[in-house]
Amino acid sequence: MKTIGIVGVGLIGGSFALAMRKAGFSGVILGVSSAKTLDLSIQLRVIDEGVSLEEAAKRSDLIYLSQPICRIIETFPLLNQWVRSSALVTDAGSTKSAILQAAKSLTACQFLGGHPLAGKESRGVSAATADLFADRTYVLTPFRTEDMQTAAVSEFVQWLQRIEAIPLVLDAAEHDRVLAHTSHLPQVASTALAAFLQMRGEGVNKIFGPALLDMTRLALSPFDIWSDILKTNKEEIDLALAGYIGMLEELRRQLGTSNMETSFHEAASYASGLRRQSKCRD
Amino acid sequence: MKTIGIVGVGLIGGSFALAMRKAGFSGVILGVSSAKTLDLSIQLRVIDEGVSLEEAAKRSDLIYLSQPICRIIETFPLLNQWVRSSALVTDAGSTKSAILQAAKSLTACQFLGGHPLAGKESRGVSAATADLFADRTYVLTPFRTEDMQTAAVSEFVQWLQRIEAIPLVLDAAEHDRVLAHTSHLPQVASTALAAFLQMRGEGVNKIFGPALLDMTRLALSPFDIWSDILKTNKEEIDLALAGYIGMLEELRRQLGTSNMETSFHEAASYASGLRRQSKCRD
Repeated sequence: MKTIGIVGVGLIGGSFALAMRKAGFSGVILGVSSAKTLDLSIQLRVIDEGVSLEEAAKRSDLIYLSQPICRIIETFPLLNQWVRSSALVTDAGSTKSAILQAAKSLTACQFLGGHPLAGKESRGVSAATADLFADRTYVLTPFRTEDMQTAAVSEFVQWLQRIEAIPLVLDAAEHDRVLAHTSHLPQVASTALAAFLQMRGEGVNKIFGPALLDMTRLALSPFDIWSDILKTNKEEIDLALAGYIGMLEELRRQLGTSNMETSFHEAASYASGLRRQSKCRD
Repeated sequence: MKTIGIVGVGLIGGSFALAMRKAGFSGVILGVSSAKTLDLSIQLRVIDEGVSLEEAAKRSDLIYLSQPICRIIETFPLLNQWVRSSALVTDAGSTKSAILQAAKSLTACQFLGGHPLAGKESRGVSAATADLFADRTYVLTPFRTEDMQTAAVSEFVQWLQRIEAIPLVLDAAEHDRVLAHTSHLPQVASTALAAFLQMRGEGVNKIFGPALLDMTRLALSPFDIWSDILKTNKEEIDLALAGYIGMLEELRRQLGTSNMETSFHEAASYASGLRRQSKCRD
């Protein structure tokens, strides 16, 4: 692997470039983005050259799609005209089924879906860091399990290990179902809480503590990122929301009864289980 | 005010004692609790003497009820036999209407409802600190506004200012309505999320990020504290939950439509408004 093309040089794409450099990649890193972002990315030494999508596709051994989901989807047919047959195209989109569906149009080379479970509150290439993926799960969603065996994928997975990410191979539909529960549902739950309190008006926020700040932090997330996630994983999120609403209705019925104790214990057991897992990973 | 009786020497009662000492209170601080807690409290120099409720009632100018809500409610008829007519009884319970209702049986001296918006994850007198109330709202719920004018209440409010709490006079019903939205609803929303995911089983927590940890932190709250809150503010919490469920249903309908953008903006506007308020207070 001598040339990498990063398409969409933002927090994720920029961090992938920096992480590869830090891990010893000595080839060329091309960037495809707006002129302004490319200038900044070169200045920050995140990429070596800013090029067009066509040039990146023609020159790269690895093409890393780190745009918003719907932009990734639009990119496949373009790439298909220009990519080398030995190249690997991968992406970093937060939902996987819609992207894999679209990637079927990419017949000229191999595609491997990816989703690094990494991020931070600031965005853009200026927030990129070489250690963003370290100790983080990096989900890989091949079309078929045997796709993991190709030379291009093996090399990519080795690089993921060198940047200290933790690769996890998962079916795209399973990825989307899990994330609907652990990421998309919490986002909508937080947005709904803040939107509801906003609707109730001035009176209801004159007294609050850290609990409300915790539960409304996700409500600050930018819609332009979430728009594509909600669109491309609509069915799974709808199911997760229906289940969550069912549990809220159950807790309403339990208010003031002793059954509530069991629910609190189940919930606390789940929450502490997560924290144990989380610590193991650190 | 020469003698203070703390009934229930835990995190809140113990911190009130320490804060009063730090603010210059030079009288006697009595504690009413289990024998074990009293020993520890004396050892930690939180209180001067451990006594019975009867003795504390007979000797104190200020009686500070910092037990669980249902214990506070049971304490009024006992206190009524023993308190001095010049004494002030106040409490630190997290809901106020039920406590004020019960406090009507306390006819022998004045009562003032209170709720310090302070707390931390550790509990018990060993977690008590002198600065727990500093820069925190301290809600006061008198039966009638004119109750705030008595000598005993004026002196208590002056002490609250000396411990750097921020007194806020509020109607008990209004307090319970606001807290149902800003504290009790977030708690039930977090418990419901964790209980729902626990019910969905192993599969759905194999990948998660900091978002899920945020949204399930409150689910770790101990039920023995929440049991009384949920019981004594059931109607308001039920209403808040109904409204929250309504908003979740609305967001379900909006999934994948452009209306979702407005909801995200309303939610973000509420969440950032809270953070501005929160900063002003620091």
